[in-house]
Amino acid sequence: MDIFEGRQAIRERLLSDATHRMKNIMGGISGFAALILKDLDEGSHHYPLVERIQENVIRLDQFLLDVMTLVRERTMYSETIDLPSTVRDVCVNHYADPADDNPDYPFKIESSPSRIPFRADPLLIRNGLYHALQIVDALSSKIETLRIESDDAAVSLRYIFVCDKSLNALKEDILAGLGSIESVDIQLSLAVCLKLMRMHQGEVQIDHLDGKRWIFLLRFSLNDR
Amino acid sequence: MDIFEGRQAIRERLLSDATHRMKNIMGGISGFAALILKDLDEGSHHYPLVERIQENVIRLDQFLLDVMTLVRERTMYSETIDLPSTVRDVCVNHYADPADDNPDYPFKIESSPSRIPFRADPLLIRNGLYHALQIVDALSSKIETLRIESDDAAVSLRYIFVCDKSLNALKEDILAGLGSIESVDIQLSLAVCLKLMRMHQGEVQIDHLDGKRWIFLLRFSLNDR
Repeated sequence: MDIFEGRQAIRERLLSDATHRMKNIMGGISGFAALILKDLDEGSHHYPLVERIQENVIRLDQFLLDVMTLVRERTMYSETIDLPSTVRDVCVNHYADPADDNPDYPFKIESSPSRIPFRADPLLIRNGLYHALQIVDALSSKIETLRIESDDAAVSLRYIFVCDKSLNALKEDILAGLGSIESVDIQLSLAVCLKLMRMHQGEVQIDHLDGKRWIFLLRFSLNDR
Repeated sequence: MDIFEGRQAIRERLLSDATHRMKNIMGGISGFAALILKDLDEGSHHYPLVERIQENVIRLDQFLLDVMTLVRERTMYSETIDLPSTVRDVCVNHYADPADDNPDYPFKIESSPSRIPFRADPLLIRNGLYHALQIVDALSSKIETLRIESDDAAVSLRYIFVCDKSLNALKEDILAGLGSIESVDIQLSLAVCLKLMRMHQGEVQIDHLDGKRWIFLLRFSLNDR
């Protein structure tokens, strides 16, 4: 069935080209919407409709990134980012309106060392971190801490969270790959997260810490990078 | 790299689900645009902008179908269609505004027998025929005839067209799979067409007929269907 057998480079190029063009078309839609919005009063009854168009383009862009992540074989681009800043940025963006007076918003993020240079596709790694947060959010009643640590061999992100249910079944599912998780949203998040981690020599794990506390672990190997 | 190894059903379901949701979001954009358009004069300077939004959604939908065709393993749905009617329909839609007084518009389509029941995913097969036409259009200076024939073993569509250049290189490319065709549009069309044909037990071939006339052949096997 695979017409690209032995021609992965062609497949990747065509998918990459089609993605760019879809992004351009979506950019066009946003642009036309912005032109209309510029002329409108906020009170105009067209205003919320045009805003909905813009919101839908953003959602579409997210799905496109996810789908392309699932079907592509490798990262096409990478640069050195500071991992703790990226993690903080994704966490803060993920939750609406941080409380200005809360330095631990949305939860405590600890990093050791405080800066960790990390080679990755910035767009993809942000998407992976976004989906990791979606997963932990869905599993937990509360996220306590996110600990980022680096040594010579690996970088690890430990999301420590409280969960009232037993996570053994899910843990097995995750270790086995995907499996019988019910929510399609979480399945998609998990699939994208797993794929992105592998694209960056990373892996996903769930471990029990104590009592009702669990660790969702993203671990990137620093060898062969 | 493939987190779906041995879990093709999960992969197909997730891709299918993500596609449906992208289509819903695009439907939303079209719907909001239609609501705005309903209120507007054709003379309003917003009118063409909203129309462009709608056109872009249609182009996006086409790319989404193409990308999903390239990455999916199998058809999910099939029904019995009449192949000659579908072919005629796609050909007429492909060219703008048929001349009312020309029974052979856009070119002569002959079918023997006149009706050929054919089991396929109607959306996918139409997309395959659309791309086949894109390819033949790009290769030819003129399409003369499209001959649809059916016997017990196979259904074949022969696009007979005139081409001033030698097609040997392209012919080899097509037989080999893809290769060194320069235009990305045609590469995408060819990749989608090849993939769709294989999904429906079909194959693509280019043969020399005589002089400057060539045959672009789509052949569907009727065994194992």
